[in-house]
Amino acid sequence: MEFHPPYLLFLGDARDQLAAKTANGVRVWRPEWCLGQFRLDGCEADCSVPDMSIEEAAAAGVKTVILGVVSRGGVIPPNWISELTKALELGMDIASGLHTRITQIPELLTAAQKNGRSLHDVRHPTREFDVGNGIKRSGKRLLTVGTDVSVGKMFTSLAVEAEMKNRGLQADFRATGQTGIFIAGRGVSIDAVIADFISGAVEWLCPENDDDHWDLVEGQGSLFNVSYAGVTIGLIHGAQPDAIVVCHEAGRPHMRSMPHFPLIDLPTCIEANLQAARLTNPNVKCIGASINTSNLTEKEGREFCDQVSQEINLPAVDPLRDGVKALVDNI
Amino acid sequence: MEFHPPYLLFLGDARDQLAAKTANGVRVWRPEWCLGQFRLDGCEADCSVPDMSIEEAAAAGVKTVILGVVSRGGVIPPNWISELTKALELGMDIASGLHTRITQIPELLTAAQKNGRSLHDVRHPTREFDVGNGIKRSGKRLLTVGTDVSVGKMFTSLAVEAEMKNRGLQADFRATGQTGIFIAGRGVSIDAVIADFISGAVEWLCPENDDDHWDLVEGQGSLFNVSYAGVTIGLIHGAQPDAIVVCHEAGRPHMRSMPHFPLIDLPTCIEANLQAARLTNPNVKCIGASINTSNLTEKEGREFCDQVSQEINLPAVDPLRDGVKALVDNI
Repeated sequence: MEFHPPYLLFLGDARDQLAAKTANGVRVWRPEWCLGQFRLDGCEADCSVPDMSIEEAAAAGVKTVILGVVSRGGVIPPNWISELTKALELGMDIASGLHTRITQIPELLTAAQKNGRSLHDVRHPTREFDVGNGIKRSGKRLLTVGTDVSVGKMFTSLAVEAEMKNRGLQADFRATGQTGIFIAGRGVSIDAVIADFISGAVEWLCPENDDDHWDLVEGQGSLFNVSYAGVTIGLIHGAQPDAIVVCHEAGRPHMRSMPHFPLIDLPTCIEANLQAARLTNPNVKCIGASINTSNLTEKEGREFCDQVSQEINLPAVDPLRDGVKALVDNI
Repeated sequence: MEFHPPYLLFLGDARDQLAAKTANGVRVWRPEWCLGQFRLDGCEADCSVPDMSIEEAAAAGVKTVILGVVSRGGVIPPNWISELTKALELGMDIASGLHTRITQIPELLTAAQKNGRSLHDVRHPTREFDVGNGIKRSGKRLLTVGTDVSVGKMFTSLAVEAEMKNRGLQADFRATGQTGIFIAGRGVSIDAVIADFISGAVEWLCPENDDDHWDLVEGQGSLFNVSYAGVTIGLIHGAQPDAIVVCHEAGRPHMRSMPHFPLIDLPTCIEANLQAARLTNPNVKCIGASINTSNLTEKEGREFCDQVSQEINLPAVDPLRDGVKALVDNI
């Protein structure tokens, strides 16, 4: 799964800003790739880039149209298909993060074939993977883990990548979810891989590299989230991380969508992740915590991070408010 | 995935006894279901049940033809297809454990449709599952875990089921791999499920039940096998076991196919599995160890089990040589 910037963000008739969350994430992290957005009548989302027609996007040099939006009712409406067909005819590829596969829409398939263009369903891996073998690879890897889903693992990985690049280090973000894949231009939707091949897919995603090169591997799920722990442990074993950062949301009342599960405490979470990670890298270390404190005032957020830092005896930062310098310093 | 005994074991032209390992497992554990075997010229396997033609099997009342064999080169040869087509025409269903899908062979699909018969690819789940929710279900569950793959988890689960039924307890073996599925007549090939749905598929497999009913859930992989730990932790979380039995092979030199990974010691293995299992069942207990000592003499095997028993302070048995009474006594 690999596609090429620059992008047009296709927002269609997104019902609100949240429906365009993925497109917005791409715009935040790769503004230089996002030449414009395409909006139909009734679109209530705005990614703060110039509005463009399909023709204008082609003229501006867009290579890939990004479908990073939730459509109404989950299906792709006919007026989207005619615009997307036009994009293919004008020489652009399409990459979609929708559950519905664009590679199964006959009009788009035909137009792509006729014009020699590519269609990518980023939620659905197309290649086969080997089973993981756990053999040590050269290069360094950092994996974000967490107390739960949606606690800032992608954000933290990208912030660490940016900080490392600022310091002149060799660093690459490795994407494992749809938004991350648009941001990296490649990756694997790891939760959509067949169970037997989770760690093998991760080994493929972050292969051997220069000794001083860092892969920043986007974590998924949590060892303490019963829905997704299989994905998480496969990521841990496949990434064989040298460093982990534990991510957490301050004040989350219980595991997401599961009021019957309390959140795990950070020291227990860190130790369980290190224990799993030692299987493929006995030298793994936790270098700190990344806390989303957006539910708190800035002062409360700082106090919360200080408290966590004392509890785990490691740096704890809000990556949005504080940046991640303290984490990278501790590698 | 559910199909009906009695069975005809289709061995085709299996090159040796090992190629018919799955069929043989079905014959060992469900002899009353195996009315006969079907062998072509050159077949070097024998499941010690009467040889039958397809016509004889139909006349004997066979309901399902079991393809529990490894074909030469992994493909299904034309002379198998003509015999299998005949089986469909004579009113039998087919269940296959081959990697190649029989549901994608046009001749078989046509014959199945024409005759109102079913084709089952037991390695390939056909239904969709919800993500796991971890909500406590009524009924009791025992899960087999292990130091590695192929250490006797299916054998142990089936032995415990038999012992419980002997004692008049309500007990059901729940199959998660191809041989187990033929033995149970239903189940889920858990390693072929999409990563996001591993624990959800297990929740579906062993649903709520009577308070005194035991599900004996067939384990897969190992938390310490980097290739398959994702499958294993999903099984643990989804099964929410009340009891676990740890399985091990005496004298295995290293993790299967991975000389770079030593075996884990049993106390560490037990504690890691209990730790993972406590997330969905805080009262989980390890009730003992099941050791395959077939590499040792009977005397050495007994000594090995005694030594393990002292080390873990729990019963340790070879299920083939000693039976599993000591394990069931300790529930």
